[in-house]
Amino acid sequence: MTEQTPRRLRYAMVGGGQGAFIGAVHRHAIALDGLAELAAGAFSSTPERALASGRALGVPDAHNHASWQGLLEAELKRPADERVDAVVIVTPTDSHFPIAQAFADAGFNVVCDKPLVHTAEQADALVATVAERGTIFGVTYNYTGYPMVRQAREMVRSGALGAIRKVVVEYNQGWLATALETTGNKQAGWRTDPARSGIAGALGDIGSHAENLVSTVTGLAIEELVADLGALVPGRALDDDASMLLRFMGGARGVLVASQINAGLENDLRLRVSGEHGTLEWRQEEPNRLVHHRGDGPTQILTRGAPWLCEAARRAGRIPPGHPEGFIEAFANVYRGVFADIRARSAGTGADPLDADYPRVTDGARGVHFIACAVASSSERRWRRFEDPGRV
Amino acid sequence: MTEQTPRRLRYAMVGGGQGAFIGAVHRHAIALDGLAELAAGAFSSTPERALASGRALGVPDAHNHASWQGLLEAELKRPADERVDAVVIVTPTDSHFPIAQAFADAGFNVVCDKPLVHTAEQADALVATVAERGTIFGVTYNYTGYPMVRQAREMVRSGALGAIRKVVVEYNQGWLATALETTGNKQAGWRTDPARSGIAGALGDIGSHAENLVSTVTGLAIEELVADLGALVPGRALDDDASMLLRFMGGARGVLVASQINAGLENDLRLRVSGEHGTLEWRQEEPNRLVHHRGDGPTQILTRGAPWLCEAARRAGRIPPGHPEGFIEAFANVYRGVFADIRARSAGTGADPLDADYPRVTDGARGVHFIACAVASSSERRWRRFEDPGRV
Amino acid sequence: MTEQTPRRLRYAMVGGGQGAFIGAVHRHAIALDGLAELAAGAFSSTPERALASGRALGVPDAHNHASWQGLLEAELKRPADERVDAVVIVTPTDSHFPIAQAFADAGFNVVCDKPLVHTAEQADALVATVAERGTIFGVTYNYTGYPMVRQAREMVRSGALGAIRKVVVEYNQGWLATALETTGNKQAGWRTDPARSGIAGALGDIGSHAENLVSTVTGLAIEELVADLGALVPGRALDDDASMLLRFMGGARGVLVASQINAGLENDLRLRVSGEHGTLEWRQEEPNRLVHHRGDGPTQILTRGAPWLCEAARRAGRIPPGHPEGFIEAFANVYRGVFADIRARSAGTGADPLDADYPRVTDGARGVHFIACAVASSSERRWRRFEDPGRV
Amino acid sequence: MTEQTPRRLRYAMVGGGQGAFIGAVHRHAIALDGLAELAAGAFSSTPERALASGRALGVPDAHNHASWQGLLEAELKRPADERVDAVVIVTPTDSHFPIAQAFADAGFNVVCDKPLVHTAEQADALVATVAERGTIFGVTYNYTGYPMVRQAREMVRSGALGAIRKVVVEYNQGWLATALETTGNKQAGWRTDPARSGIAGALGDIGSHAENLVSTVTGLAIEELVADLGALVPGRALDDDASMLLRFMGGARGVLVASQINAGLENDLRLRVSGEHGTLEWRQEEPNRLVHHRGDGPTQILTRGAPWLCEAARRAGRIPPGHPEGFIEAFANVYRGVFADIRARSAGTGADPLDADYPRVTDGARGVHFIACAVASSSERRWRRFEDPGRV
Repeated sequence: MTEQTPRRLRYAMVGGGQGAFIGAVHRHAIALDGLAELAAGAFSSTPERALASGRALGVPDAHNHASWQGLLEAELKRPADERVDAVVIVTPTDSHFPIAQAFADAGFNVVCDKPLVHTAEQADALVATVAERGTIFGVTYNYTGYPMVRQAREMVRSGALGAIRKVVVEYNQGWLATALETTGNKQAGWRTDPARSGIAGALGDIGSHAENLVSTVTGLAIEELVADLGALVPGRALDDDASMLLRFMGGARGVLVASQINAGLENDLRLRVSGEHGTLEWRQEEPNRLVHHRGDGPTQILTRGAPWLCEAARRAGRIPPGHPEGFIEAFANVYRGVFADIRARSAGTGADPLDADYPRVTDGARGVHFIACAVASSSERRWRRFEDPGRV
Repeated sequence: MTEQTPRRLRYAMVGGGQGAFIGAVHRHAIALDGLAELAAGAFSSTPERALASGRALGVPDAHNHASWQGLLEAELKRPADERVDAVVIVTPTDSHFPIAQAFADAGFNVVCDKPLVHTAEQADALVATVAERGTIFGVTYNYTGYPMVRQAREMVRSGALGAIRKVVVEYNQGWLATALETTGNKQAGWRTDPARSGIAGALGDIGSHAENLVSTVTGLAIEELVADLGALVPGRALDDDASMLLRFMGGARGVLVASQINAGLENDLRLRVSGEHGTLEWRQEEPNRLVHHRGDGPTQILTRGAPWLCEAARRAGRIPPGHPEGFIEAFANVYRGVFADIRARSAGTGADPLDADYPRVTDGARGVHFIACAVASSSERRWRRFEDPGRV
Repeated sequence: MTEQTPRRLRYAMVGGGQGAFIGAVHRHAIALDGLAELAAGAFSSTPERALASGRALGVPDAHNHASWQGLLEAELKRPADERVDAVVIVTPTDSHFPIAQAFADAGFNVVCDKPLVHTAEQADALVATVAERGTIFGVTYNYTGYPMVRQAREMVRSGALGAIRKVVVEYNQGWLATALETTGNKQAGWRTDPARSGIAGALGDIGSHAENLVSTVTGLAIEELVADLGALVPGRALDDDASMLLRFMGGARGVLVASQINAGLENDLRLRVSGEHGTLEWRQEEPNRLVHHRGDGPTQILTRGAPWLCEAARRAGRIPPGHPEGFIEAFANVYRGVFADIRARSAGTGADPLDADYPRVTDGARGVHFIACAVASSSERRWRRFEDPGRV
Repeated sequence: MTEQTPRRLRYAMVGGGQGAFIGAVHRHAIALDGLAELAAGAFSSTPERALASGRALGVPDAHNHASWQGLLEAELKRPADERVDAVVIVTPTDSHFPIAQAFADAGFNVVCDKPLVHTAEQADALVATVAERGTIFGVTYNYTGYPMVRQAREMVRSGALGAIRKVVVEYNQGWLATALETTGNKQAGWRTDPARSGIAGALGDIGSHAENLVSTVTGLAIEELVADLGALVPGRALDDDASMLLRFMGGARGVLVASQINAGLENDLRLRVSGEHGTLEWRQEEPNRLVHHRGDGPTQILTRGAPWLCEAARRAGRIPPGHPEGFIEAFANVYRGVFADIRARSAGTGADPLDADYPRVTDGARGVHFIACAVASSSERRWRRFEDPGRV
């Protein structure tokens, strides 16, 4: 458990005020390692709630704003070395684009929740802006922060499985098995509302995590897909269940399932990757284990913290083996990566890639294109080619 | 553990001689309950091997034949009350049709391994013959014999899950992750050979089990599917990996995966069924457990033998809870069902449906149509309607 | 799955008539492999029930007896080569001694259920008789028949764990958590009755299995123990809960728990063995897996049927990996061992030790001494030395 | 995930400087919730290292001390309302007593790592001091902070299991399976050294956690015990393996195992509690699950965050079900409890017991007496009575 001695970074938060859920997760994750402190914010789109939230969080009045525009304006008025090091965007998806675009364009480093934006066009514009400005932009695909996910990635990269042939990823939840959005539940409300969530429901909310997990671990590029999206709870406008077949460049095949109507399931993200020589299995609900079925010997259970894990997996842990780490720790690892990159940038050095290990704006953009492609495939009921805009 | 006192039935076996695998499984499964004894046979397509196998198995010479035609002829010459009660067919798939058709047409009860036959036309012809002759015809979809599968079926039927919305079934193995068929392995040889296995590889061998499991447990009828079959090990003529999306009549969605190239996996058949009120999970490798995720309370682990299981599940067990039963016991349950039906028929009484609980020729025929539909969908790369011939 | 071609052996059964449980298990286990057939019996201590049971089981009248004495007398009248090859004793424990002693003394091979007899003196007498007569005598400590138990034994023997330091064995059930014996339950009745079960309850019924499992797998000899036996359900005369600390010769330590009052548990026999280099864990309720925690690498999950298992484990299986075997199959393995020994004896050859692999009368006797020692330690509330009578 | 708006508390730390392990865990756990900030310290017994560590941690020079005596003196010179709210002691065990005694005696609130002190006399003295001064004193038996441990406690308290009859607790690790202390490993060095660890090794380090877990969950008081401690790795002065039988007041029985020589195990703390109506099982390595075996229905798996958990368990979580929490979160819950108590005390209100939920100095003292009793029982090789000094 290393503790950093260099100066603590300062971050601003947009969204995440009173009553919000994910904003608090981001703040706890950042607090865990003490690498950065909350220095400014515009915590709600409702001015009064924004200001009240900031006060409750101990943000000084001069840094507590009624709107993100106010925050941006105030920050720009400060000397460059007094500005925040990063802006964290945790609003509902529909406002990601204008906010992220504005801050990135103004030269701020940004961390944005997923899915990145609503449309492929927005995604491409944002990627272009970040590239032009040369800023840092992280997307909180937090599941990639688990040490055993990084171990799986390394095992694929190093060839321990041989060529990858089959990938099955499922992200199943049960919380939308009933029409929870009709009961006043805020989370259910915005996630099932096309105005705030865009063209996809379960696919966007959790399917994008699944896509990112596959991409991160295997490095494979989707070439074609056929998807079937359904709104299985009567009256729902967006999909609450999505399944698709994948073909990857190079010949591997895949299946992706994202469903929020599996009554009784909690947060059951699971990945299975089979290659010529073995198969890996990982489940988010038991994140400290990675099962390695080998073709030539007994199945192995790799556990977080073990000395024989790869460097990336070991760095991503804080405590000894057998002491479980969880969701917040994985989330914090994404921030560790972003902050390491910011610090290296400001030090004028290149960051160690094992430190600056986090999903980029291009990952976020690919996810948005993926959603669009799957929605189209489902509505047209046919196979479609997928083009990853970030792939040359 | 009930033991039957009525007269022991007598069966003949076709195939399953020296060097075969599945024939021995059938014999052990039948021996377990002692309901029937091996009385005759034609154990190989090679006359010498057939006769030698029969002698090794203790079959009297007068009942030990060099060919199935010889067996049939000899049986027909005997008075009706001296003929065998059933003929068990455990040859490679390509010979199922002529043998099954001949015995059924001659009025014998038949038990045949799966997949039933090679083509939909053969399947339909066989169904017609069995219907005309009024004989009993069981297909050894043995996984339906597990007590916890019967418990799952009952929970769906009784409405414990509400309307079914999503079904995910996977049957993953790893034994064909290498080109085992090029090493002289007999099992791998015929299963990857179109001449002996027909139009499908993994799909036919294990995908048909998966289809049958879904159908048995949920009672849902497939309406449409889009499949993707691949021969991922270079040089293979038949699919070793199959994935598909399913739409069921009534609106439920599904995913089916059957793959034999998941290096390191053994016999990983798993089913997940989600309804309005809960989700069931069952894995063949831990067959004595059925996991019931409930939407309104803690997940429950149902175990074989418990007094609160349904009647069908309880009858399918032999020993108390906590004493594991396995594959052979499940297999034996299929035979229990067939033999109960035969005995009820000969007694002129109707069989108790909980006793005469086994897959019928119509289940086998549906499986053959399913294979044909999936192969067509994959080669045409599009969604296809599925017609179950047994559905009025 | 080998099937024997040599002549089928013939066995007689004492006890196990209508309404008994364990007799049927023995018969099914023997039937599974078809190595022997039920040829004679005296199935109950109640003459009418004995005869009725034999008829129901299809035993010819000339071999169906009203008492074990009648069976013995009749067998002795036959020419030696027409006598049964083995006598299986499945009566309640109190009658084991006279029956086993009489048949062994008359030169019959015997298989007897556990615990072997009631007192250490009886045990020693029986061992002496068997030694004098040179007959075969198996005790159905059936859990040693599981393939993965044999794998564990081999891993200890071969030194894969280094010197053994710690052994924890638990056998927990819940079926006696209520005063079931007061409800007319027959099993509960005799097992809680000192007249029929002797000086120990849970300790004798399942603690003896635990002792045997430890002894079989580790080969360690108990040197001292301190036990605490309790009758935790009010009104019970015999222990329903037993725990003890063990010291083994050579310095290893151990803990043994046997309890039948763990409400909600089924048949939770579990063993953990730690040596210098690793730790093995096995649970009877998931018998096809053996977990090998290694000090120098990831934990391994060994599974039944895998090609890298030891010869003893591989021979003890019937079907491929991933196809679960269970309790009956393990039980059948004990019989396989006994029958292989009988056949080798009659052939005048020495049996292959991997074939003639079953618990002997000396194992049964050690178990009886163990029970006596633990009962004494508990009543005296102090550590006691343990002397294994079979140890030179 | 609630975030506190009231003023952040300030704490000092004694020990936990560069190279120490557990100090960092405490700091991360405190940081997670942001309820208190590190304001002062004396981070090592080596003055230079102490000061360097404090600087690295960002402690202002005026609050960064070369010794704990210096810290105490400086704090006492400040006005009462400028002193730290709590002093956290994370030194090796041998210095716990003088430091804790001095700060408590001076009126400071203290949080001290376990085991509390070396001798029963020290423990009693400390309890007396805390009682006299009326200060708050928490002991970081961190495993009691897991939400599912609190759920288990509530289920016992509420009578869901009926009267408790049997408790089995094991805490098994493997990291001392080799003579690690001879390789320069700092952790192994002090934990196997009587001068710094006192009269017990594994028993003190992890056995005390096991005792506390049993006491916390069941509320049962140990009446008698017989223990067997061994130093199984040659050359070791303190026990690395401890097992004992327990008798509780009221008649329940128990087994406690604490062992650090189980090669290949990580941090395998597990508890099983059986009552008249059911059995609970919990494992620290899968802390988000609590298994409830019921005598009258299927086993239930309770999971962290579920709405049907008790209030205490729900308050102890931060994120939704299916999002794993781990060791640090549980540790943080102990601090949450201490800080809630401090805040309530300073507000002059009584604390809500569900908030001020943490192990007290009396729990720590009982643990020290327990260690002494077990050591005596083992060396005398006999049963001993146990007197809990805190029990009236």
